[in-house]
Parts: sequence; C-alpha cells; structure tokens
Amino acid sequence: MADIRYDVTGIGNAIVDVLSQSDDAFLSTHGLSKGHMMLIDEAQAAKLYDAMGPGVESSGGSAANTLAAVAALGSRAAFVGKVRDDELGRIFRHDIRAIGVDFDTEPASSGPQTALCLILVTPDAQRTMNTYLGACIELGPEDVDEDVIAASRVTYLEGYLWDPPQAKEAFVKAMRTAHAAGRIVSLSLSDGFCVDRHRAEFLELVEHQVDILFANEQEIMSLYQVDEFDAALQAVRGHCDIAALTRSEKGSVIVSGDEVHVIDAQKVDQVVDTTGAGDLYAAGFLAGLAQGRNLHDCGQMGSVAAAEIVSHMGARPEADLKALVAERLS
Amino acid sequence: MADIRYDVTGIGNAIVDVLSQSDDAFLSTHGLSKGHMMLIDEAQAAKLYDAMGPGVESSGGSAANTLAAVAALGSRAAFVGKVRDDELGRIFRHDIRAIGVDFDTEPASSGPQTALCLILVTPDAQRTMNTYLGACIELGPEDVDEDVIAASRVTYLEGYLWDPPQAKEAFVKAMRTAHAAGRIVSLSLSDGFCVDRHRAEFLELVEHQVDILFANEQEIMSLYQVDEFDAALQAVRGHCDIAALTRSEKGSVIVSGDEVHVIDAQKVDQVVDTTGAGDLYAAGFLAGLAQGRNLHDCGQMGSVAAAEIVSHMGARPEADLKALVAERLS
Repeated sequence: MADIRYDVTGIGNAIVDVLSQSDDAFLSTHGLSKGHMMLIDEAQAAKLYDAMGPGVESSGGSAANTLAAVAALGSRAAFVGKVRDDELGRIFRHDIRAIGVDFDTEPASSGPQTALCLILVTPDAQRTMNTYLGACIELGPEDVDEDVIAASRVTYLEGYLWDPPQAKEAFVKAMRTAHAAGRIVSLSLSDGFCVDRHRAEFLELVEHQVDILFANEQEIMSLYQVDEFDAALQAVRGHCDIAALTRSEKGSVIVSGDEVHVIDAQKVDQVVDTTGAGDLYAAGFLAGLAQGRNLHDCGQMGSVAAAEIVSHMGARPEADLKALVAERLS
Repeated sequence: MADIRYDVTGIGNAIVDVLSQSDDAFLSTHGLSKGHMMLIDEAQAAKLYDAMGPGVESSGGSAANTLAAVAALGSRAAFVGKVRDDELGRIFRHDIRAIGVDFDTEPASSGPQTALCLILVTPDAQRTMNTYLGACIELGPEDVDEDVIAASRVTYLEGYLWDPPQAKEAFVKAMRTAHAAGRIVSLSLSDGFCVDRHRAEFLELVEHQVDILFANEQEIMSLYQVDEFDAALQAVRGHCDIAALTRSEKGSVIVSGDEVHVIDAQKVDQVVDTTGAGDLYAAGFLAGLAQGRNLHDCGQMGSVAAAEIVSHMGARPEADLKALVAERLS
C-alpha cells in the first residue's frame, strides 16, 4: 500500500463566494428559497448580482471550505476542483494554497469563467445561495490523479459534484480508486435540494459505497423522504461505517455500528452567518479522525470548527482553529 | 403469574402544590436555587408561604402527576402515597381519584399535615420547588400491597422517595415484590439535588435493579458526575433495559440495547410552566408501552404529554391527552 501523503483529499466545485446582507423581502421578490442552494445560469447570475447590495468576495465551495479548515487544523490536505485561468480563479487558488492546501488542478484555458456563488445573508443568519457553476462543468475524471487518491487516508466528496455532468465521473473514479487502495470514502450530502435532484443515486452511494457520511437534518430526512429525524437516523444506521448527522443548535448525532454519540453544539455568542457550518463540522471531524481521536472527540472538534465559522461572515476560518480545539478538548 | 390489574402502579410523595408567580430577585433573596427541589421544614414552609405572592393549589407530587396522566391516557393506574386525614389530604385524594387513578393508601390519623410544595414559577417558565414532606414521612412498607404490585405491569418509583427514611423501605419492598412476580421496575431520578443526596444508592439501583429509567439531562449527568450529556449517555447504556433521557427543547434520547432513538420535543407555542414536564413524559412513555407501542412511539407520546403540561400552570393535564396523542401519532 502506498504511503499516506494526505489525511484528506477533497473534490468539489471551486467557487468564489460573493456575500451580501439581504432581507426576506429581497428573497421573495427574486423567488429564492431561504437556506438552500439554487443553480443559476450566467444571465441569472448577472441579473441577481446587479440587484444585490454591496458584496464581499471570498474563496468558497463546500468541499474547498472543508479542506481549508482541515489544513488549518494541522492535517495534510489536498483539493481537486476546476477554475478558469481568470482573475477569480487566481484568487481561489491563492486563498486555498495560502491556508496550506495542495491544489494542483489544471485551470481551464477556455470556456466559462470561474464559478460564482451569490450568497444572501438574512438577519436570521441564514444563507441563501445562488450558484453559477461556470468552469466547474469542465471538471472531469482526467483531473483526478489516482496516485494522490491512493495516497490519501480519506477522499472527501461533496454531493454538489453530482450537478455538473462530468464531475460525477470524476467522483466515481475517485471513489473506485480510493476503495481499490483500501482508503476511506466520505460524502457530504451538501443540500436538501441537491438530495432531491439526485436521490436515487445518493441512496445507492450511501447504502453501498460511502464509509463516512455527513448530512444535516434536512438532508438526511430528504434522502429517506421521512418527516422526522429519528426515522432518518434509524434508516441510515448500519449503512455507512460512520454517519455524522448535524442538527444546528441541537448539536450532532454520530452513529457507527453499535456506537452512538449525541454531541452538544458548541455555544456561540451570536450566530452571524451559517455559511459553511456543515463544511467546517466535517473538517473538524475528519481532522480528529486523522489525529486518531475517538468518535466523541471527532464530533466535538466538528462542533468547535462549526461554531467558529458561524460567528462571522464567510466560510473560511478567521480564528485559530487549532487553539480553539485545544481549549475545548484539553 | 397473577393477572394484570394495573398497567402502572406508582409510589411517591403525596403532595399538594402551591404555585405562585415569582421573579429571580425573590429566589435569590430567599436563597433558592432555580429549577431545583429543596426540602424545607414546617417553620421554613410557613415563612416562605408568608412571603410568596398569591398562589393556586393543585394536587401534585412527581409520581402522582405521572399516574394521573397515565390514567388520562386510558391506561389502568394505581397510586401509593401518604396524606394526613386533613383538608389538603382530602383534596389530594379527590383529585387523583377523579382522574381515574386507584388510590387506597390509608391516610395518617396523627402526625404532620399533608405535604406541601411551594412552587415559584419565574418568567422563564422554570419552577423552583420547596417541599415540606409532612405526612409523607409516615409512608412505610406496610403501605405497599404485594398483591397490587404483583398485579401491575410496571411499578414506577420516584427518586424523591429516598428522602423520607421509611419510604425507602417501601420502595425496596415494592421493587422486590415486582421482580419476584416477573414485573417491570421503573425509576425516575426526580431531581439533580436528589441525585446528589443519594448518588451511591441510585447508582446501585440503576446499574442492578431498574428496568426502565427516566432522567433528565442534569440528573443523569449528576448521577455519573460528568459534565457532558454524551458521557452520561455512554455510561448508562447497557445498565437498564430502557433509559429514556429528556433534554427539554432538545427532545429526548432513548437507549435500549443496540436500539437508540433521538426524539424531537413537541413544539409548544409558549412555555408557561415546566412543572411536571418530566412526570408527564414518563406518563406518555409508560402508557405507550402499555399499549404495546414501539420505543419511538413511546418517546413521542412522552413528548406530546410533556408539551401539554408546560403550556399551562400546574402539573396535571388540562387538555384531552388521548386526543393529542391520537392527533400526533395518527
């Protein structure tokens, strides 16, 4: 078996976020469903961007956020995702490398621009996301380096990859490569609407392919089409080696065989913006696993990382995550 | 084996509650610890009663509240507890019989008056309880009818019984009788301070004697002297056939062997008074068991009953619990 070079390698859409404060009226005027991610085309993106208030740009993307935080927590991290060779693409590459993530995916030299996510943050700290996938649709299996996957303890995949058609092939290739090398495959369900779009395939993945599943309450309930958390919990038990189910202020529930942990949310003085909460929970959890921690402590690391990210705008950590974890798990 | 005459027989302190609205300042002036039950003597009771605002009297007592609701849910219920042959004792007897509970314990014809619990309800809906045990200290093993216990599917005991010295003997006799007859013993830990007073004995009970345990988050954490819910959950797993752990607005967690359920709290428009929430959860749960329901549905019945009781002052149901359950579990 190859030596481990990375604790976690993530594959996801490479996106630059544009965050703007908004209100409920703006959402309904523009037909946006609060708390969810909607896919938009170039024309819709241009129109929505014109209507939005002043924004703040920062590198985002669900799996990319996770990997950035995995690196910030001191684990070895790599990311695979497609930008274009434009200004936003350079910003994305700079940011993810600067935090310590290896990112070597070849940028597209033609075709659509680097992906944008127009995020409207309402006063209740919910984020409503509108993604123009842009260059992400160019990601394909040729971007997945089998040597990197085989040398990664965990390959982490975002459900959003199921949206751009070729990315799905990259996803499947990475999953096969990881399993062939005896490595772990982890999936985040990403979003309730995303689960709606791809339910049958996600069910097949969760029940037969995925070793570590991350999902929030809405996503897991959507996957199994049940209207209560406990029903989803019963459905997912036994399918994955580990399922980590996040429930916002209710904390998280981790199931692994007979083992069950009910982890409290980390207290937050003021929730400013929930963008990235799930991404950061996964980061804390996976970094904990890489450190050989037990499932309870992995869950607590997830809670600590998620609490940091919701306390400010944006989905990349501002505080020293390592120090926060050391304080909580001392 | 004798025929079943009762689904649940409860043994507890027979207490009349005096509920009064209060504020935090009053609690601190009188050295009261919010949310807990404190034992007071006759002189302290008289002094506190003088200082309190206008009150509303209603029959109470933790196990008595549970049995009243078990009967309201259509199960066959009996109660064992000691009042004096005074006015409050007659009120207690009237109320519990009127709701359909068999209550035949001989009242004391001498000694202290019927027990009182002076309950201060603060604007945050927390209840701070001050109990003068009065006639409850007269309850003894002679009050436990072995035929009744042997004919009861479940014998339900409140931890508070560990406070009056002879009641403990009644408790132990009932437990032995129930087990000798092949019946189920259920315990409620009652209160964090109560657990503090009797930790070693409660631990022995929970680990070796109790089949169904009810505890809230603070109580189970106090029992195992841990500062996190998950640690208590891990500690209690495997000790009782069933442990049902309540967490206020976070719902409840039920563990039974490999089975685990995470049950949401039932939504409540406005929480008015949390007195009796745990008592009513236990009632719903045990009534569900008597109806042959699965653990998930038992937990949901507990949540429905608890939600009803916190929506108004007092610890006896006002709405039709059977109808509420039918609506939720249809």
